[in-house]
Formats: sequence, C-alpha cells, structure tokens
Amino acid sequence: MNNYGIDIWADDNFIIEDGVVKINYASKPSLIEMVKEIREQDYKGPLLFRFPHLIQKQIDKLFNLYNNAIDEYNYKGKFNAVFPLKVNQLPNFIHPLIKCGEKYNYGLEAGSKAELFLAMTYNKYGSPITVNGFKDKEMIHLAFIAKKMGHDITVIIEGLNELETILEVEKETNLPTPSIGIRVRLFNSGSGAWAKSGGIDAKFGLSSTEILEAFEMLEENNLSDMLTMIHFHIGSAMNTIKPLKNALKEAGHIYAELKNLGATKLNAINIGGGLAVEYSQFQRTLQYSLQEFANDVIFTLKNIAKQKGVEEPNIFTESGRFISASSTVLITPVLELFTAEFDEEHLRLKEINPPLIEELRDLYNDINSKTALEYMHDSIDHLDSLLKLFDLGYIDLEDRSNAEILTNLIIKKAIWFLEVDDYDELKRIDNKIQEKYLVNFSIFQSLPDFWGIKQEFPIMPITHLNKNPTRSASLWDITCDSDGEIGFDPNKPLFLHDLDLKKEEYYLGFFHVGAYQDILGMRHNLFSHPTEINVIFENNEVKLENILESQKIIDILEDIDYDTKQIKEVLKKNLDNNTYKILKKYLHDNSYLKTTWS
Amino acid sequence: MNNYGIDIWADDNFIIEDGVVKINYASKPSLIEMVKEIREQDYKGPLLFRFPHLIQKQIDKLFNLYNNAIDEYNYKGKFNAVFPLKVNQLPNFIHPLIKCGEKYNYGLEAGSKAELFLAMTYNKYGSPITVNGFKDKEMIHLAFIAKKMGHDITVIIEGLNELETILEVEKETNLPTPSIGIRVRLFNSGSGAWAKSGGIDAKFGLSSTEILEAFEMLEENNLSDMLTMIHFHIGSAMNTIKPLKNALKEAGHIYAELKNLGATKLNAINIGGGLAVEYSQFQRTLQYSLQEFANDVIFTLKNIAKQKGVEEPNIFTESGRFISASSTVLITPVLELFTAEFDEEHLRLKEINPPLIEELRDLYNDINSKTALEYMHDSIDHLDSLLKLFDLGYIDLEDRSNAEILTNLIIKKAIWFLEVDDYDELKRIDNKIQEKYLVNFSIFQSLPDFWGIKQEFPIMPITHLNKNPTRSASLWDITCDSDGEIGFDPNKPLFLHDLDLKKEEYYLGFFHVGAYQDILGMRHNLFSHPTEINVIFENNEVKLENILESQKIIDILEDIDYDTKQIKEVLKKNLDNNTYKILKKYLHDNSYLKTTWS
Repeated sequence: MNNYGIDIWADDNFIIEDGVVKINYASKPSLIEMVKEIREQDYKGPLLFRFPHLIQKQIDKLFNLYNNAIDEYNYKGKFNAVFPLKVNQLPNFIHPLIKCGEKYNYGLEAGSKAELFLAMTYNKYGSPITVNGFKDKEMIHLAFIAKKMGHDITVIIEGLNELETILEVEKETNLPTPSIGIRVRLFNSGSGAWAKSGGIDAKFGLSSTEILEAFEMLEENNLSDMLTMIHFHIGSAMNTIKPLKNALKEAGHIYAELKNLGATKLNAINIGGGLAVEYSQFQRTLQYSLQEFANDVIFTLKNIAKQKGVEEPNIFTESGRFISASSTVLITPVLELFTAEFDEEHLRLKEINPPLIEELRDLYNDINSKTALEYMHDSIDHLDSLLKLFDLGYIDLEDRSNAEILTNLIIKKAIWFLEVDDYDELKRIDNKIQEKYLVNFSIFQSLPDFWGIKQEFPIMPITHLNKNPTRSASLWDITCDSDGEIGFDPNKPLFLHDLDLKKEEYYLGFFHVGAYQDILGMRHNLFSHPTEINVIFENNEVKLENILESQKIIDILEDIDYDTKQIKEVLKKNLDNNTYKILKKYLHDNSYLKTTWS
Repeated sequence: MNNYGIDIWADDNFIIEDGVVKINYASKPSLIEMVKEIREQDYKGPLLFRFPHLIQKQIDKLFNLYNNAIDEYNYKGKFNAVFPLKVNQLPNFIHPLIKCGEKYNYGLEAGSKAELFLAMTYNKYGSPITVNGFKDKEMIHLAFIAKKMGHDITVIIEGLNELETILEVEKETNLPTPSIGIRVRLFNSGSGAWAKSGGIDAKFGLSSTEILEAFEMLEENNLSDMLTMIHFHIGSAMNTIKPLKNALKEAGHIYAELKNLGATKLNAINIGGGLAVEYSQFQRTLQYSLQEFANDVIFTLKNIAKQKGVEEPNIFTESGRFISASSTVLITPVLELFTAEFDEEHLRLKEINPPLIEELRDLYNDINSKTALEYMHDSIDHLDSLLKLFDLGYIDLEDRSNAEILTNLIIKKAIWFLEVDDYDELKRIDNKIQEKYLVNFSIFQSLPDFWGIKQEFPIMPITHLNKNPTRSASLWDITCDSDGEIGFDPNKPLFLHDLDLKKEEYYLGFFHVGAYQDILGMRHNLFSHPTEINVIFENNEVKLENILESQKIIDILEDIDYDTKQIKEVLKKNLDNNTYKILKKYLHDNSYLKTTWS
C-alpha cells in the first residue's frame, strides 16, 4: 500500500491508521474529522491547520541537541536560539511559538522595521533579540528604544555605514546602546573564495578589512565593550555538514583574533540558520544527523578556542525552517477529475467511419496483456494523425471526439493490463496517462516556493489510504494561470485514487508548509490567504481554536485600495434591492470556490 | 556610450537626452526631476511611476493592428478586446485603462469572483465582459446578475459541470442568461498532441467529446442560442507566430463544425492573449511583427470560413501584458557600493609580512598592460591560499585584510589596463570583478517574476548617461534573503557607474513592470507595495497625481491580523511618553529604508 513516504518525512508526527491520516499525539484525532468539523461551520475552500505541539517538539529538539553536545564535550559556552521572524510572522504561528519557547528563553530575530516592532512587542524579557538585514537610522534608533524597554537586543551590522549610524544615534540620544554584532563575510562556502553564496561575493557581511575598521571605530568611541557577537550564515537548508565545518573554522578564528585584539566582551558566535527539513516523499535527502551537526559545532569551536587560548564562545542559532515547517498543514478538497468523460457510452460512431477510427476500434477490441504497450503507442499515433486531419478539414467534430474517446479507452485498458503484470512498465509510461485533479486552492498563494524555486512538499490524500491509488496525478489549482499546476513527475510520481466525486469526498494534504509559504503567498487572481485553524490539545482532547477565515472579497478590494463604498454604491444603483442583497452576501464571502463540486 | 538597449525595448517611450532618461512625450520631462519632486515631499524608498499615456498608446496600437488587417482582407467579422484583470487589478492602473479604452468599447476579463466584482462595477456599459477560470455556483450567479445590470457578459465554461450549473441558475432564478462561451482544448501547441501546454494535457478547456455534449445540453434546454463564443489560449508571450497559426486552424474548424451542427448565434472566436513584450536589453527576441500577427489571424479565419461555408467570426483578444507592461516603471535609489573599502590607505602592512603578501605587493607594483590578466589571476590564487592559511591559524586578521585589499587593488588596476586595451577580455573576466549595488527595494515585492521565473526586465540608471559605466554590477535588495539579488550575468551584462554616493545620488529604473508584478508582489520581511504615482500630461505639462504611499508598518501588521491596539498598548506601557511618541511616528512610516544613505 502506498504510504506516500510518511515514514521518510513525517518524523512520526502523522501516522496512517484505518485508512486515514491521524495526528500521532494525545487522542490521535484524524485530519478528516477536523476538516469535517470546520466545514460544517461553513468554512469552505483551503484550510490551514497549525499544530503548536509540533512547534514545541522542534524547539525541545533544538535545545536538547545542543545541550547534549555541550554536556558531552564539557563546553563552557552557552546555547541560545532565536526564531527568524521572516520565516513566519503570522500571529497564529508567533503567539504559540513564543509560549513554547519561554522555558528556554527562546528569542526572536528581526530583519526589517516591521519585524523589529513585532519582536519589541512580543518577545519575552530575558530572551534575546537579534537584528539582521540592512538598517537605516530609524531602525537603529528603534533598537536603542528596545534596549531602553529592557530587551536583551543585539544589532548585527551589515556594513560600516550601519556602525557609523549607531555612533550617531548613541551621541544624539540619551538611550542605552544595544549590544553590537558584526556579520562577517566568510570565504568558505565549500568551493573557494569566489563561490556564489557565502563567498567573497556574498550579499551580506563585512570583509576582514571592514571588521578591523569596525573594531577601531568602536575603540575610538569607547564602545568596544558593546561588541558581543559575530554572526555568519552560509545558506539555508544545508544537505551536508562540510560547508558548515569550514565556515565554523573561519568564523572561530575571526572571533579569536578579535578577542586577542582586545574585544573583551565579545562572547558569542551566531551561526545563523541552516538546519534542513526533510521535504522529500521518496528518499531521505539529509546526509547528516542533527546530533552530529550540533556536535560538530561544539567540537570545532572548542578546538579553536583552545588553539588560540580564548574563552569558548556562546553559540546562537537562527534556524527558522526547522522550527516552523512541520507545524502547518494545508488541506483542501479535490473539486473534479478531468478524464471521466471518456466513456464508451459517449462514442458517436457512424455507419462508415474514417479508416483510422476503425483501426482504433480494432485496437480497443483486440488489446490484451501482451499487446497492451504496443497498442497504446499505436493509438497515440493514430490520434495525432486524426487531429491533423481535423485541422485540414477532412474529418468532423464527431470523428475527432471518437478518436479522443477510443484512444483514452485503449490507454485505460493498457494500464489495467500493465498494472496486473508489469508495474514498472506502468510507471515508465505514466507521463502519458495522467489524471488531472482540480484542487480548490491557489499554488501562488499557498505554495509560492513550489512556483518560484520548485520546492517539493509532501502531498497525500488524507483518506482512502486502505486502497491502492491507481492514477498518476497532475494537480491543477483554481487560478486561471497555466503555471498553477503541479505536473506529474515520473521521477517523483504522485499516485492518487480513481473516484467519483459525486459520491465521495477527497481531500489532499500539503505538509511542511509552515516556513515562508504564509508570507510569500501571492494574490494572483486576488485569491487570499486560506482559512487558518489552530489545533490545540487539552487533557488529551483536541480543540480547534482561533479560526481566522480567508479574507472576504470586499476586504481584498479594500486592501488593494479600491473605494469599496463606491463599489457598493455603483452595484446598488444598478440593481433591485433583493438582487443587491444577494450580491452583498457574495461580497462578504471569501474568494475560493464554494458550492459547485466542493 | 552604453544606451542600455533603450533602442531595443523602449519603443520610443523613453529616450536618453542630456545624460538622463526622459519621457518621450509632450514636454519630455526627465525621470530624475519627477523622482526629486516626489522625494521632496518626503516619500522615500522605491517609487512606482505609472504612465496612462502609454496605456493609451498600446490600446490604440492593438485596435489599429486588427482594424487594418480587417480592412486589408475585407473581413466581415469585428474586432473586440478585453483586458484580463489578473494582469493588473490595482485601481491606479485600472481607472486610467478604462478611460483609455472607452472609444473602442474595450472591455474586461475576470478570472475569479473578486475580479468579476471589479468588472461589474467599473466596466463601461456596451463594452464586453468575459469570465474565465473555474467557477462555482456563486460566481455563475454573479454573471447572471451582471447581465441583469445590463452588461454584455459572456461566461466561458471550462468544463461540463459549469454548464450544468448555468442551467441550474437559469432554472432557479428569474435573471436573464448571460452569453455562453466554450473554452476548447486544442492539441496544436507546436509539438504534438501530448505537449505540455495547450496540448491534450492542458489545464483548461473542453475536449471535442465535451464540446459535443455541451452543445447537446444547450439544445435540450433551449439555450443553444446563448452559445456565442469559443475561446482558446495557447500560451503567454509567444515569441514565434507558428503555434498560433496552427491553433487558429484547429479552433476555426471547431467553430465551423459547431455552426454547421446548428449553433446559429455562435459568432466569435476568442484567441486569448499571447502578444509578447520585448523585455530584452541585449537583442530583439520577438520574431514576428505585430501587424503580421494580426494579419495571420484574419487571413486564417477568413480561409476556414470560406472552406466550410460559414460566416466570418468576430474576433476577441485578451492580451494583458502587451497593454500593461510598459506603463509602469520602478525607480529606486542605490544605497551603497560594497567594494569601496579596498583602498590603499587601509593597508596594515607590517615590518615583516607573510611571503605571499609580499608577492601580492610585488604584483601590485609591477602590473602593466601586458601582465594585467596574468597578475590578476595570480593574485586570486594567492588570496585563496592566504584564506586557507587564516583558517588554519597561520596568519592573523591583519594579514587577511591586507590580502583582500591587495587582491582587489590588483584587480582594479587590471581592469583599468584592460579597459584601455582590451574591452572584450574585460567582459570575459567580469564575473570575477563585480561591484555590488545595494538598492532600496525588495525583489520579492517588486520583481516577483525575476525570482520565480527568471523574467528579465530592462534595468538602467536614469542619470549619468553621458559617462561610460565601468563596473559590472550585481544588484542586492534590502531583504535579508540571499535570493534577493540580481546577480551579474556575463551573457547579459549590466554595467553601472563607479561613484561616491556621499557626493552624488544614483537611481536605477526597472522598466516594463506593469504586468503581474503589482499583484504577485510578496511581503517577504513584511516589505509592502512601493509608493505609486500616476504621471499625467495636461496641456503639455506633467502632473504627478494619485500618490499612494507604501503601506505604513502599523497597517502591514494589521493586515496580517495582529491586534495593533495591543501592540500600541504593550509598547506604550514600557516606555516614557516622549520615546513612545517617536516610536509611534515610526510605526506610521512605510517599511523601506529612509534616512541612511538614501
């Protein structure tokens, strides 16, 4: 039975039992029962379920990994972590995150002014805040204000200009100076000094020359005691551990050199993010264990500190994907299957048919397990020829329809034969015989990384799992854009069930969508962020909380700066009262498909 | 002098004069004077200028092309066009568009419920509305209501289910039935029946079998007179004309067949979009003239109508990119250049330096036009070795800094020699010697198609054009994401000027951003849509109107559903009144960088 790689990617968060996907926690509720409960309250369209217990699990795991390594190597530095807000800024994610991290003093990282406001408001006092990204004077001023509020905040400078601005603000205000970090530009990205990411051309960080200048500027202004951290980030979602080790050596030496130059309060190395998530349904792609990763960090830094005779630095990490990806699952109904129409009953055969149509009939009648593959290929050739004849005006629309139906019937029969005898051959020809599943969501809104960087996400039906899926599947979203498709990939084949949607419902789950997808979501065709639900467990019982419905159409139009009062007036003026009432109701619905098929 | 391909892509909309980019219209104002006027009003960050006169130009061009062709071939059908709202739904674009299209009865196309509301509100009576995309019962009901309002609306069905729903709504309400169109699935995409887009696997459209069934359903329900249009769309931004010709033949025959089956009121073929825009700065990519395109459409349909003895169909087009792309230009300041620090004065040479540093010094002193290339390569090798020595603890941070500076100085000298003697060789080595330009914008927000589908956009400075640019450039945006970069591409090299931003300002223009970029814009790091300005010409004078500032931070947080009242309360509680006042001011600023460098 196809388990959709749940043993590879799900980390035991979800299990298949009784043919459905269940949450492997507490009372083990199934996803389908939660979907039904929500839909009974008339929330249709795509549903985004968030699982705070999975955020907790990942935070626990992160701190345990490093604290284990620290114990094992008798390391003197401390482990600290912050969540990079850019990975998911939405309140239904952030509020639980902060609660889950309290006992560890888990902090927040901000990369823009808006994110810094969130950190200043919601970060727990005593937990660290780090500030990355390019900053203007306002943003630096904000960091001073955060310090004044009592936050443990470190401004990590991306260039000397930012340090100059810090000095300006320090002189111009009476506010306390936040801790200062330096982002260093490392040359070790695994492939020499000129490599694209993390190399000398990297987008972020100070060169050695700038680091020295920065330290001198701090000394001249009696602020060298504010330098507490150096920071680097060599890339997201690392699949191997080697580049990190190289980078650690380089950063470790820079740390030690600065210490020896007199940076007495420098005490931390921030290694950025990089912990990967297993997105694959087909084979494990991560080539290191998480414990190995943490051990390498501790071991490498311990060695350098010893070699250079400096104290062992505290360690900060900024992993976001690792903490957030698994916590969110998108579930949405399949609206329609698209080849259902090719039934024998729809044939419109005539007394006399074009010769190629007669040949298709013969292929269809004579096909058997031996001839299945050959006849299938022949039928596709015939269809190509018949379509050409149609374009030239030699056959009519009914002939063309017969050609389509017969070819599809032959392919279906061939699949049936091949499935029995030769599953491998079936897989090989899958790209010719896909079924298209129309799914009530927008890929641009809900899986922007699929569109942009071809990021895979685990996809599976949440029911029907006691039956073998027989159709190779392409998924279509409801945008009117031909890019809104997850095409069938023979190397990573998605098989779904053959079913009659008029008789049974069928929902697909898209997993690991908790990192970046929420905020990168695009409003193509004006589709809005899906309806969100937080799934909470209390005393072993599941509760669906904080339901936040997908935006109403009128609010979307308001958002893109239409005069919605004018819209209502124009519509009202041109309609009788009753019709306008209906219209107004629709204006206050969300934009996804609702009645038909769903 | 580098003209940034303005003769290739700009269609005479913009010209270079007196070293600056000017709008080639009316009083020919320069872009830089408009930028200064806006920035003096304290709008900082990226600015999005919209030019309604360019929308007018494109609409005029579209209608002239087809009406010329109709005249030339004495064609009996009429030409109609609609603008697909998905390409740009924003009011500052749509309001001028509708005004520009009035005299042609230029209509609107809607692909979702929200877009249909816009069409119902703002479309001019007498201009057509077409409705594409997947529809539920509410959306179809809305189309009936639009018809009732008096709109000339055609619902184009994407599947038989939608036709069933139309029949339901027709029976359940007393509303007038809108015109019905059928999207046909064509097999001609240039590469056989199974080709990816537009082929048998295409996302949209009815098969021949479904077309026949649809027509029978209409006849059974006495609605066959409502069938007025068939529709197809074979792909966006076609570079060659051949696939269109093939598709026209196929669609023409389907039209004629339906006419002959008794579809008496069928009178139009909607050929979708597909008119391409020249995005390239380096060489023309479009392989057909627009008039040739229009002529081919008219000629092909005329022939099929003659062959099958049916009336010549009206023609609808839904080109969006062609109408909108050129109308919008993003202009934003460069904030910083990143290799400025590598000056001789920053060298920290010691009495005794490591041997490789001494070798770098010799290379730097001895380099001449003959040895330039060789010494440059040598210096890069030495830098690699010195970095390795640093990682192993053999040299210190000052040595490392000296290595960086000397290597960069050698490269700069080599460029100077090569520029004089061998510009081609200089181009070949450009990928090693780029300057990084930090630009005050977000690629995710303003050029999402660059991130997602590597779409090129013409990029050029709007001043300094009487000087030759000497630096090969990579552009960095201000997000803290390493994907936020337009890297240097030696095959499509962008050269920019070497300058001191403390003494002079430098703005980059990103052209052709009027199609899709506005609505696909992503809120990565919570950056918001740029400040918009409409540029209007009245009596030869330019006016900057409808200034719509980029969203305030507090509104962004409200948008992603934070309790902004709570945010203000928390911040206020922890700060003295004066500091809170400053904070509140920042909360009401937009999120882009403002003071520092910009």
